[in-house]
Amino acid sequence: MRENSLLLTDLYQLSMLEAYAAYDMDESATFELFVRKLPARRGFLLAAGLEQLVAFLEQLRYSEEELSWLRGSGMFSDAFLGRLADLRFTGDLDAMPEGTVFFPDEPVVRVTAPLPQAQLVETRLLNLIHFQTVIASTAARMVLAAPGKQLADFGLRRAHGAEAGLLAARASYLAGFSGTATLAANREFGIPVVGTMAHSFVQAHDDEETAFERFARVRPKALTLLIDTYDTENGARIVARLAPRLAREGITVSAVRLDSGDLAAHARAVRAILDQAGLRDVRIFASGGLDDRALLSLSADGAPIDGFGIGTSLTTASDAPALDCAYKLQEYAGRPRRKKSEGKATWPGRKQVYRRHAPDGTIADDMVALVDEPEGGEPLLRPVMRGGRRCTALPSLAAARAHAAASLLQLPEPLRRLEAATVPVRISQGIRSLADEMDRSGRIP
Amino acid sequence: MRENSLLLTDLYQLSMLEAYAAYDMDESATFELFVRKLPARRGFLLAAGLEQLVAFLEQLRYSEEELSWLRGSGMFSDAFLGRLADLRFTGDLDAMPEGTVFFPDEPVVRVTAPLPQAQLVETRLLNLIHFQTVIASTAARMVLAAPGKQLADFGLRRAHGAEAGLLAARASYLAGFSGTATLAANREFGIPVVGTMAHSFVQAHDDEETAFERFARVRPKALTLLIDTYDTENGARIVARLAPRLAREGITVSAVRLDSGDLAAHARAVRAILDQAGLRDVRIFASGGLDDRALLSLSADGAPIDGFGIGTSLTTASDAPALDCAYKLQEYAGRPRRKKSEGKATWPGRKQVYRRHAPDGTIADDMVALVDEPEGGEPLLRPVMRGGRRCTALPSLAAARAHAAASLLQLPEPLRRLEAATVPVRISQGIRSLADEMDRSGRIP
Repeated sequence: MRENSLLLTDLYQLSMLEAYAAYDMDESATFELFVRKLPARRGFLLAAGLEQLVAFLEQLRYSEEELSWLRGSGMFSDAFLGRLADLRFTGDLDAMPEGTVFFPDEPVVRVTAPLPQAQLVETRLLNLIHFQTVIASTAARMVLAAPGKQLADFGLRRAHGAEAGLLAARASYLAGFSGTATLAANREFGIPVVGTMAHSFVQAHDDEETAFERFARVRPKALTLLIDTYDTENGARIVARLAPRLAREGITVSAVRLDSGDLAAHARAVRAILDQAGLRDVRIFASGGLDDRALLSLSADGAPIDGFGIGTSLTTASDAPALDCAYKLQEYAGRPRRKKSEGKATWPGRKQVYRRHAPDGTIADDMVALVDEPEGGEPLLRPVMRGGRRCTALPSLAAARAHAAASLLQLPEPLRRLEAATVPVRISQGIRSLADEMDRSGRIP
Repeated sequence: MRENSLLLTDLYQLSMLEAYAAYDMDESATFELFVRKLPARRGFLLAAGLEQLVAFLEQLRYSEEELSWLRGSGMFSDAFLGRLADLRFTGDLDAMPEGTVFFPDEPVVRVTAPLPQAQLVETRLLNLIHFQTVIASTAARMVLAAPGKQLADFGLRRAHGAEAGLLAARASYLAGFSGTATLAANREFGIPVVGTMAHSFVQAHDDEETAFERFARVRPKALTLLIDTYDTENGARIVARLAPRLAREGITVSAVRLDSGDLAAHARAVRAILDQAGLRDVRIFASGGLDDRALLSLSADGAPIDGFGIGTSLTTASDAPALDCAYKLQEYAGRPRRKKSEGKATWPGRKQVYRRHAPDGTIADDMVALVDEPEGGEPLLRPVMRGGRRCTALPSLAAARAHAAASLLQLPEPLRRLEAATVPVRISQGIRSLADEMDRSGRIP
């Protein structure tokens, strides 16, 4: 299965496309991706995944081999499959740059393209933007919860599949993590890769000191020793004994890692043991079931921990593994469209988001408006593709990461402290009037 | 990135392997994957992912191109990379068949291989088994919550990446779902693919009736119409009007789908409208933010709904997106090993799980014992690979699905009703004595 196979879609997309084809419905359609409401405990989200979306749209086509499977499946007419063979993405894409903070009801991605194209891309578009946004938003909270600390992604093993692990490394780095344990993320995205040792390494040796010594000789660079396999403080004493001997061979112990028990208490005890042995430069790294709440509490506690490895709670976003997001038709053939399902009504029309800042630079409020409404503030959706091609170079991952850092700095203080708070999002008069007019006209769409 | 690229691993695996290579540590090691404790609200788990694990182990090797990247990275010595080029999996794999119900502390997968091999596979092994087990276990609850109903996976769009969506379709089908909306899952695994239409299809037309009529003419097979875009009951009345006209053309409306509001109330109203129009055979299908609790409540309520489409709560397992599982060294070079980290101590030795059944066939209890301890009951871990090759054909997905159904039937009634209950898991005297002996001997591993 190739990464962006167009079979990675819902059957109904092709069913609808076959009907659109039969009735020549290929006028211009605008769809927007937005989040209906924030998960519990969340005050903001961080946009991510655009780079992968653009790559998907640029390469959009059915391979010969996929078409041949579709033909063999008997699910679709030959005439339709003939049209499918020629399908490419020739539309426009506007989106918030990766690393932009956003809120509910705000379009994050807007696609304007002939209806079949704009429809077909729905499944993978949501799949790509939703997941990285979930992870970047989760990672951003961790970054805010542990100011000045190094955070590393340790979560490939419990991520939901390989792509999830790889893209979680990317999204968390974008949000301000320092690195990842996933080797492939270094290769694919240039993300700094970090790593220590597993308990099994220590267990496979007859004693801990031999394990540390062997590891140190073979992997002396950025040497980090895992000291909690049997007894954390005893592990620290072994390091205190061993470090001077290694130093004579030119090997420096950079850090120790704790992975169990009361991390704050162990960190204090270990810090004291190391300091007493003159190992003030040996840093303490902690891991083991950490999430944003644990980081907040360790920060508040002043625990002498220099960095954290975060696994499951990051790569599965276990406190909020999904967003209530949707990709909805807002305009077709020049006319606004509105879904009115109970609790899921949409605001019609093609939209832009304008952000206003307070004098101190923090976000004051956002206004969602029609694209042609005159509104003040910074427009958040930027042109990304025109006529199926990039109309601008996407920022590098490093630049997107810098944008995310700047974006997080613009959050009002309560949001930066991860308190229950949010930013006002207003819906413009133009959108409200349009919706009223559509409702009053009685014509349903 | 190829699917099973060996770069999809944690850096530390290769760091440890380099140290093992330097000290010729390649004796036989046994690692076991087990779950430490159940997530909240869960009483049992369902094993899944073995087929993908076996494929990974069989094909395990670094490609020339990956080795060349590793060389260029400067992270490892040439001597070590030379050894890595020759690395294959030559070990033994024992595992619970897919679709087996299991509980905490029970080894689900056991690998016995030269230490470097058994170590290197850790990351992807956990990634594959953890994710499908998470999904199969979640799906099994939904299957039990909606007895006699058709359940379909609608969740690719919010799954964590493409692989997650594809494997979630597989794991949920294994657990008893009837089908998936994901086209690629039909191709890869032969899972029945289902689909209706999206709201955008209705919105793109000037009126609902035209939308239904066009869709019906082009996609008459298993025709399901989505009736909640504007007003559910009005949608049902349109279907009631339209169905006789379509019937004259030989087109049968199979079902309608509701996707918003109070599903039980709408289903009753829609059922009445359809029945009054003589459309007793038109089935009602519901979707929209459903999870196991919603299914239980709709079942208890007796809502006239024939099937459900489940998205986010299935493919992200949103109530329990991760398991507290581990893959731990239990024996090396013929000697048992034991990790003693606080709260994370492991039971040493190579183990088997024996299941005893009550007279009515339900599970009475499980016993975790050393492989050579004489215990009664059904051994749950079966030989899968010997010397790096399959020693038995894996069951087909259909057979694994049948095994899952049988396995769920063996759950004690409170567990089948999804109540807070579990099955006793005992740790054998042999394991306890071994652990005591290791602790007493003072020699730490």
